[in-house]
Amino acid sequence: MNIITVSREFGSGGRELGKRMADELGYDYYDREIITAIAQRRGLDEKYVENALNRSAQTVYPITFRRSFALPAVVDLPQNELLFEQKKIIDEIAAADRNCIIVGRNADVLLRDKKPFNIFVCADTEAKVRRCIERAEPDEKLSENDILKNMRAIDKNRARTREILSGSKWGDRQSYNLIINTTGWDIKALAKATAGFAASWFSGK
Amino acid sequence: MNIITVSREFGSGGRELGKRMADELGYDYYDREIITAIAQRRGLDEKYVENALNRSAQTVYPITFRRSFALPAVVDLPQNELLFEQKKIIDEIAAADRNCIIVGRNADVLLRDKKPFNIFVCADTEAKVRRCIERAEPDEKLSENDILKNMRAIDKNRARTREILSGSKWGDRQSYNLIINTTGWDIKALAKATAGFAASWFSGK
Repeated sequence: MNIITVSREFGSGGRELGKRMADELGYDYYDREIITAIAQRRGLDEKYVENALNRSAQTVYPITFRRSFALPAVVDLPQNELLFEQKKIIDEIAAADRNCIIVGRNADVLLRDKKPFNIFVCADTEAKVRRCIERAEPDEKLSENDILKNMRAIDKNRARTREILSGSKWGDRQSYNLIINTTGWDIKALAKATAGFAASWFSGK
Repeated sequence: MNIITVSREFGSGGRELGKRMADELGYDYYDREIITAIAQRRGLDEKYVENALNRSAQTVYPITFRRSFALPAVVDLPQNELLFEQKKIIDEIAAADRNCIIVGRNADVLLRDKKPFNIFVCADTEAKVRRCIERAEPDEKLSENDILKNMRAIDKNRARTREILSGSKWGDRQSYNLIINTTGWDIKALAKATAGFAASWFSGK
């Protein structure tokens, strides 16, 4: 079984790259599917699960949580329960023993015993902002400044969660097999090139 | 004209990767050739040129140089003269307008206007040490500790020289198109895969 994990900077096109690589290679593809599965199993709203997991493990519950807010009980599921469910689902994906690509969710860390091929996807800030503007829904137009702020916050949380889970650094060259800067690439052509690269890796194993 | 630059951590196999990629793609290849050309033009010893350029621009001449040592005049060529000669030679390579791969020498920074495809090559520390031990000449057996010390010193100087020349960070994902961790790869197979990847980049331009 070949597992490819894709970690990425927000706005870099990592998700599209992962999806297209899966099509190219005929691999199963997991991304939002994991969020959906957690939400279904725990009877939670998908958006809530996504938001909770996208915050870092340290910051999801402010210390004053219980005193300051009155929220429906369902929201009170501790984040480590969500992380636990996520780990279970990712382990089940690996146990299915089918070639697959998993985008995000720290799958590279969680599945390290399975020796996945780990890709990190980045891009120049300008290219990421442009991408976010192009892809925004008509009702979610944000200023460039707001996009930059969101981008930094999301990436910071991704970095922090990874550090808590693994002790190794998010986006650092020592933590991955391949780091790709998507700036200047057509993602379709890049997916073909990267799929070929990853296939070479597995054929040498 | 397609230019590929290869920057690398000491011991990562970056030089072999560059050479094999050049063979694979039928590109010209430059590495030691640049040192040799500088030495010839300036009437210097190759080893001296190499050592001087491998030290960072800041550290090559200790402040006390003139007072403390009596060295042959030829050694007294300021390092910026060597860097200038190096820049001239790299510009000449680019002006020849032939597809080429340049390993090291900060060619990615010096040729940025030519929009080269910039690769950074790294590896896990353990793999780099093993590589150094395997490739050592019989008369240059070093302890693992000495290898580690050398490795750190050389990489530190590479990082510093780059920072002085460019203001951007050596080995940082924002500074390159692709970062490859060679750990676990057969370099021959990796060269084929990387050559294919780079060829896709140029065919999209």
